[in-house]
Amino acid sequence: MLLGFSSSSRTSSRAEDENEDVEVLNSEYGKNVIKLLRIRRDDKKHFIKEVEACVHIRLDSVNEYLHGENSAVIPTDTMKNIVLALAKCKGIQTIEQFALDICNHFISSYCHVVYVKAYVQEVPWRRLEKNGIPHVHSFICVPEGIRFCEAEQCQNGCPLVLSGIKELKLKKTTQSGFQGFHRDKYTTIPDRTDRVLSAELFCKWSYGECQDIDFDCVWDTVHESVLEAFSGPPDCGEYSPSHQKTVNNIQMLTLARIPQIQEIEVTLNNIYYDDIDLKKFGLTNEKEVLIPVEIPYASYTCTLGRKKCLREQA
Amino acid sequence: MLLGFSSSSRTSSRAEDENEDVEVLNSEYGKNVIKLLRIRRDDKKHFIKEVEACVHIRLDSVNEYLHGENSAVIPTDTMKNIVLALAKCKGIQTIEQFALDICNHFISSYCHVVYVKAYVQEVPWRRLEKNGIPHVHSFICVPEGIRFCEAEQCQNGCPLVLSGIKELKLKKTTQSGFQGFHRDKYTTIPDRTDRVLSAELFCKWSYGECQDIDFDCVWDTVHESVLEAFSGPPDCGEYSPSHQKTVNNIQMLTLARIPQIQEIEVTLNNIYYDDIDLKKFGLTNEKEVLIPVEIPYASYTCTLGRKKCLREQA
Amino acid sequence: MLLGFSSSSRTSSRAEDENEDVEVLNSEYGKNVIKLLRIRRDDKKHFIKEVEACVHIRLDSVNEYLHGENSAVIPTDTMKNIVLALAKCKGIQTIEQFALDICNHFISSYCHVVYVKAYVQEVPWRRLEKNGIPHVHSFICVPEGIRFCEAEQCQNGCPLVLSGIKELKLKKTTQSGFQGFHRDKYTTIPDRTDRVLSAELFCKWSYGECQDIDFDCVWDTVHESVLEAFSGPPDCGEYSPSHQKTVNNIQMLTLARIPQIQEIEVTLNNIYYDDIDLKKFGLTNEKEVLIPVEIPYASYTCTLGRKKCLREQA
Amino acid sequence: MLLGFSSSSRTSSRAEDENEDVEVLNSEYGKNVIKLLRIRRDDKKHFIKEVEACVHIRLDSVNEYLHGENSAVIPTDTMKNIVLALAKCKGIQTIEQFALDICNHFISSYCHVVYVKAYVQEVPWRRLEKNGIPHVHSFICVPEGIRFCEAEQCQNGCPLVLSGIKELKLKKTTQSGFQGFHRDKYTTIPDRTDRVLSAELFCKWSYGECQDIDFDCVWDTVHESVLEAFSGPPDCGEYSPSHQKTVNNIQMLTLARIPQIQEIEVTLNNIYYDDIDLKKFGLTNEKEVLIPVEIPYASYTCTLGRKKCLREQA
Repeated sequence: MLLGFSSSSRTSSRAEDENEDVEVLNSEYGKNVIKLLRIRRDDKKHFIKEVEACVHIRLDSVNEYLHGENSAVIPTDTMKNIVLALAKCKGIQTIEQFALDICNHFISSYCHVVYVKAYVQEVPWRRLEKNGIPHVHSFICVPEGIRFCEAEQCQNGCPLVLSGIKELKLKKTTQSGFQGFHRDKYTTIPDRTDRVLSAELFCKWSYGECQDIDFDCVWDTVHESVLEAFSGPPDCGEYSPSHQKTVNNIQMLTLARIPQIQEIEVTLNNIYYDDIDLKKFGLTNEKEVLIPVEIPYASYTCTLGRKKCLREQA
Repeated sequence: MLLGFSSSSRTSSRAEDENEDVEVLNSEYGKNVIKLLRIRRDDKKHFIKEVEACVHIRLDSVNEYLHGENSAVIPTDTMKNIVLALAKCKGIQTIEQFALDICNHFISSYCHVVYVKAYVQEVPWRRLEKNGIPHVHSFICVPEGIRFCEAEQCQNGCPLVLSGIKELKLKKTTQSGFQGFHRDKYTTIPDRTDRVLSAELFCKWSYGECQDIDFDCVWDTVHESVLEAFSGPPDCGEYSPSHQKTVNNIQMLTLARIPQIQEIEVTLNNIYYDDIDLKKFGLTNEKEVLIPVEIPYASYTCTLGRKKCLREQA
Repeated sequence: MLLGFSSSSRTSSRAEDENEDVEVLNSEYGKNVIKLLRIRRDDKKHFIKEVEACVHIRLDSVNEYLHGENSAVIPTDTMKNIVLALAKCKGIQTIEQFALDICNHFISSYCHVVYVKAYVQEVPWRRLEKNGIPHVHSFICVPEGIRFCEAEQCQNGCPLVLSGIKELKLKKTTQSGFQGFHRDKYTTIPDRTDRVLSAELFCKWSYGECQDIDFDCVWDTVHESVLEAFSGPPDCGEYSPSHQKTVNNIQMLTLARIPQIQEIEVTLNNIYYDDIDLKKFGLTNEKEVLIPVEIPYASYTCTLGRKKCLREQA
Repeated sequence: MLLGFSSSSRTSSRAEDENEDVEVLNSEYGKNVIKLLRIRRDDKKHFIKEVEACVHIRLDSVNEYLHGENSAVIPTDTMKNIVLALAKCKGIQTIEQFALDICNHFISSYCHVVYVKAYVQEVPWRRLEKNGIPHVHSFICVPEGIRFCEAEQCQNGCPLVLSGIKELKLKKTTQSGFQGFHRDKYTTIPDRTDRVLSAELFCKWSYGECQDIDFDCVWDTVHESVLEAFSGPPDCGEYSPSHQKTVNNIQMLTLARIPQIQEIEVTLNNIYYDDIDLKKFGLTNEKEVLIPVEIPYASYTCTLGRKKCLREQA
């Protein structure tokens, strides 16, 4: 069945109720939006990671759902405490490592937790500087794409981790067009060879293996590759024949540059810019004044992966 | 692999690229947040449906992604036009029927569309009345749970539809507790036998078959069942031993009352109310003043279905 | 004069700094978004008020700003504690009375507080019922216009209070037009005699005197008057020749019905509904399918008051 | 006097109604959230300003409110057209100049417009660069404080303009404390000499005269001064004894550096960071893990101006 309930990952062997008519097909619970600030002090110099974490688990029985029997239930308050304690003990080197630490704790501490997933996103604090001198303890929030990650682990399984960028807003004022598309009675847009491309980008990627990955380096390289594939060379740009092709260019460049990435999903949400006619006011308008149309908006998603045979060799 | 990319429904037989290294694992695109108001006039009396629709499709090739070859691409602007035209031609009897009409149009009109999904939600306009007399053309927006639906269809497949309620906020000031749960070194909460239960509920359900369903009647019955299972009898309520059990009670009551429902997912997002100590100000506080703690919040999700054997008999 | 929370009324006699160049023209500080739930129990039947309060004060000196001298500063944490303690001691009969209680506490407890203002809004919980029987302790959130109030008081002054409704969304599908307006070279809209009027309304009003007012009764009457003046008689409605006139009708009806109201400000934010042309698809469209255009939106504000001479007589 | 957009300055001489009981105390209307993108092309290099504008006017009579007489009403659709036409004709050198152009157009074109105000904010697009080479036509959205302005003008009056920064989020992990404050029975916080200071800042300022001001230069200098006064020297910071003093430091530095600024209002909204006790888990916590408490939050506002005598000399 294609139609998905929100949790895409049902485990097949769920404990069944004595109730002969119904069965639990999925269950999970946890704590969302656990915010915390982790400060590391190297003498007078302070380093910070401010994050927002969510942790969900699935137990090996569903007695709390069916019978109100709570003995196996780890309270979500306890889950929050664990996240805080891990932030203290392990620190937050990267959000990915922190998400893996969370998964590892639940799987190794509780044998009745059959599955855990953690989502962590980072508040984009950047160290202030004055005339090129970095400030020892002051920061400014500069969101140019939010970094997030997801990790998950099954009891007796290896951890998996995804990294991502969201809310990255890019614009180019030319070198974008769309023509030669399917036409029928419901088509009203013309072919266009020069338009504004203004989009919010989302992407996330998986790794072949989770070990020995420099998550910071990969994230920075993906971020840079997205900007580069979107914009093209600084002196002239590069023509985009469709939003779809731009999505693919981003993916191809990323996969080419970063061998650790196994699959990458990119979503481009496009805001249309309407050329407006000012002739009625005695004015020309050679795409000098445009109006953004934020809804409805077009969305393009593609997941590109390295081929399986190649994966198996790797 | 459990770890899901956002689209849970990858089709296995994707056209592959000549590119020997990579393959497209998923792709879809469409138009989001298409807002429209449909008015039906019966002489002076007006009937309205205001909706917000999203439509996504997947094509049988990915040449636009890989090669910038647009000839098969149905523009998202065309997709919006189709939604508007269908609203005119078919009307919007229910959002579910409208979502099915959208799916049907894409599948039957375009043989190269291998998959379509439509999401529709309804703005909760309620007819005004004065002294019990309904107004012929005036309405007030009263959100007490937003009605939405999702439909999807594959080329050569049957349509599937889900209905749902979201953003339904309920509260009970007693008859809720939580005790006997798992305790370890990270546990700090005490057993509680009387607490406030304040939650935002989300639920969605699938049907065994899509034909001849009175979607309005089912939605109203689910809505009523959620309120009833949450609150219990009006004169005394019913004790909830955990949020999980409340989730299950909602599901059991719904499945018992509505035979057409095959599976139901319920998510309860709980806002914790903190008892505050006013003794330092010389005041008692017998749970008379509480503070809502909106983040972090606990989330409980369960999907309950009728057993397969029973389904097959049906 | 209507008291505006956002526009702080400056006190003229501000302490000046020794600094000869600059002067403090205004200062105030406080705690925003203090959320609390107040439960009153009458045996098994529970009554609730959930509110969000803001409290700001101005001190009789500004030494903390100019010299870092904190001795007069009441911490905002203390301000929050006072709000919680008042909720316990005084209860929350109405949000207006609660706001007045807050103002009174600060003015009477601290002689160096020269000015206090309190904003309180109420979460729109409605008691659940089953077959007409009200539930003893369960509630549903039903926002059909949020109730709020503002109170302020100066040291040695009388308290002032405003009540208000915000986020009230109304729609009528006919009996609205706009014609005969000013035309010039920048005018592109035609005269219209039949259009959809869909608006978010905001209104707030002041009282001649704050004593012995039944705030609940006044609020309900204003709410009802807004709906009635907006929609007209249920069998036929009433023609609105402009949004401005609808604003005025609401004000006139309110002032006529509620003698305690001295001034009333009404803001109507209009969402335009665009008639779309479906002829290109071979379809007629007699205002059956319309598209809401949420931005830009038009906003109309008017404050109407009883004439001064009449006030003085009152 | 600082001009507040939200607080509309009432004109004293309002046309009165024949209605003997009521009078219009204020009225204004306009178009909000007019979004537009202005592109200027210098051969292959493109320069952009994307803005969101609001324009409100007050007419010299209120016949449209009282009598449904529309002949003087300039439709808000026309107002939007004027903004678009001005963006084409005048360009958008700075948002301040654009706001002044809007005011000037309404006052000079319509003698029955007694008052106009314009609010303009800018989308923070930054030109992309690759290895230090600026891109000719590609941009990234980097919000580190949103630039906005307000202008207003009365018929026969001079225009006034305010510039501002909003949504600027700054944090310092030490060099902040609060002690020696007023204590009473409702005080529960201790003196603190080392805490995190994390705030969202808002500031706006007026100019002595609007002519010949380099608005870009002033805005950049204010932005830089805010960061500098907040954080102190990069190698050690500067101790803040209260949020109020930090507000004042920002104002003093700004007024000292920029002689054109006449008054400056600064609001600091503080997010409290809670030190958490991890001893129960066998862990120390020397302010290494903290939890942000976003509500309730404290807000501190002060308006500082150059003294009048000095102004008159200027």
